[in-house]
Amino acid sequence: MYERFWRQMGDKTTITIPGWQSMSYLSDGSNICWFLEAEFATEVVRLHKVVGNAVTEGRHIVVGTGSSQLILAALYALSSPDAAQPISVVSAVPYYSSYPSMADYQKSGLYQWAGDAENFDKEGPYIELVTSPNNPDGYRRKSMVNRSQGLLIHDLAYYWPQYTPISSPSDHDLTLFTASKTTGHAGMRIGWALVKDKEVAKKMTKFIELNTIGVSKDSQLRAAKVLKAVSESCEEENHKNVESFFKYSYNLMAQRWKQLREVVDAGDMFTIPQFSPAFCTFFGKETEPQPAFVWLKCEGDVEDCETFLRGHKIITRSGTQFGASPKYVRISMLDTDETFIQFIERLSAIQELE
Amino acid sequence: MYERFWRQMGDKTTITIPGWQSMSYLSDGSNICWFLEAEFATEVVRLHKVVGNAVTEGRHIVVGTGSSQLILAALYALSSPDAAQPISVVSAVPYYSSYPSMADYQKSGLYQWAGDAENFDKEGPYIELVTSPNNPDGYRRKSMVNRSQGLLIHDLAYYWPQYTPISSPSDHDLTLFTASKTTGHAGMRIGWALVKDKEVAKKMTKFIELNTIGVSKDSQLRAAKVLKAVSESCEEENHKNVESFFKYSYNLMAQRWKQLREVVDAGDMFTIPQFSPAFCTFFGKETEPQPAFVWLKCEGDVEDCETFLRGHKIITRSGTQFGASPKYVRISMLDTDETFIQFIERLSAIQELE
Repeated sequence: MYERFWRQMGDKTTITIPGWQSMSYLSDGSNICWFLEAEFATEVVRLHKVVGNAVTEGRHIVVGTGSSQLILAALYALSSPDAAQPISVVSAVPYYSSYPSMADYQKSGLYQWAGDAENFDKEGPYIELVTSPNNPDGYRRKSMVNRSQGLLIHDLAYYWPQYTPISSPSDHDLTLFTASKTTGHAGMRIGWALVKDKEVAKKMTKFIELNTIGVSKDSQLRAAKVLKAVSESCEEENHKNVESFFKYSYNLMAQRWKQLREVVDAGDMFTIPQFSPAFCTFFGKETEPQPAFVWLKCEGDVEDCETFLRGHKIITRSGTQFGASPKYVRISMLDTDETFIQFIERLSAIQELE
Repeated sequence: MYERFWRQMGDKTTITIPGWQSMSYLSDGSNICWFLEAEFATEVVRLHKVVGNAVTEGRHIVVGTGSSQLILAALYALSSPDAAQPISVVSAVPYYSSYPSMADYQKSGLYQWAGDAENFDKEGPYIELVTSPNNPDGYRRKSMVNRSQGLLIHDLAYYWPQYTPISSPSDHDLTLFTASKTTGHAGMRIGWALVKDKEVAKKMTKFIELNTIGVSKDSQLRAAKVLKAVSESCEEENHKNVESFFKYSYNLMAQRWKQLREVVDAGDMFTIPQFSPAFCTFFGKETEPQPAFVWLKCEGDVEDCETFLRGHKIITRSGTQFGASPKYVRISMLDTDETFIQFIERLSAIQELE
């Protein structure tokens, strides 16, 4: 979806890597995260400052092969190898559909998926994944369990101004971001963690060392260039005739959500979440949440929304995969223009049939 | 160490990636390994054909974030989630020092490190890691356990003509290679597996999906370019005035091993492995094994070779980390010229002291 913006930028984010460059495993032996490219770290700090969505002071940056690897690294870092039993991993329903399998696919003795955070009542330590804005439903979230002995991982992949009003810089112990949701560059496989505790940062680094001996330098260098271009587009917006990346993508999302709401409101087959506008410190005005996914509910008799929509050639992911009712499905709002238009047309056709 | 070669190649392996390119997670939805870049796969097949070190026909290629990720993916794919207990993972001493921690750091219920393959006598299924030529000692290896119910992972990272004579194309069920050892590009974090069984390839792909949702496209594209340049350097050697990458690196290794043997033979403090020359189908003549590491033994009274050498400012990895005696250490033969010369000088100075 963001491809057009990057085409408009022309050569600005083109990266050229000679054959002899960045051949070593090592980036900076003096850094806790020894495979972190300095250029990339600089641009992460700069972008968070420009956007105002995260405190970076007093944080260690750990780079990962996408934020998936960082979630696993965080589970590893927050669990204890000496514990009598695996630590419980929870997240409130509806949760990101990959969390259960990510936590359990290795049958790890360190941590174990324990389901919905709202129904979690086991004594002792636990890890809660707090995704805000939430994937799949787009709502802002805080920790649900809220007990002592809770270790929190804040997955803020969607805490960017095109998706949600930026209220204040996030300031948690362990926060995850990813290039794929920030700028659309999923193929780079670059995420980053902001980590307060030095020992946790060390253990996360150790995980990535054992898992993949570091993170592609090529992609780190490319990500640095892309994040830099985003920061510059914001800084130049005021005094040059430039549209910032976030303004561009905010407008694109606004347009898509408007189209979607019109189609949904035209009948009574479907409902989608309602959000309240709020002041966005980045845009300096009230903005509307416009999530990267729509959490669509089939109203009335349709019990299995995924199957129903598949019958109308709309491919979705069932609510059951998110720990929720099959009356819900998740649909991406970030697909290509062509696919999005097709989705809107097909949804509209269903409404007209009824 | 190979940096100079790649500098000589000039722009030939320089890669340019525009900001809008390869943004998606997906590479080829019809391939089992849906995140595998077609260009990279083509160059892998081509290089193995040119070198003659692996059969690629009837194999599925699975790309990984270095071969580390592929080892974990293979352990996952070869183990069974329904087994009553974790499958044993073994490798013959001296084994690659990271195998035990890679197998055990997640405390997985799927697989578990069970130590030296030569002493392994447990009934039932097991996974054996066969590293050939072996890291750390450079010897060619076959499976040691050799029982039914054995599942083999062949780690052939060093089965390239600069390190060992190529006797015939390897033809195993599951074989791993990595760019870092082939061409020296460790920072790319690109490895590949050649997998005979479709279901194993599927499970390995699933592992990488859950672990990192694919592999950096930037690095895959860069790796394609680098492997292509290597193949072309071999093909052009005969009719143009070109030195192939393998001839260049073979000569470099030969020179280093010659220097090392001279220093070692000048005294009786140390011994190193002796190898027999063999016919190399790639070079069309007899060549000597010249491993990427030297497995050095302190003779005489020195019991802890690592500590002893550290006292003389030579940093090594102790034999104990490889399941072997502390009289042994592993030292890289692939370091920069400067570091290698320093190592030779310091080793020589020790011999003179005695």
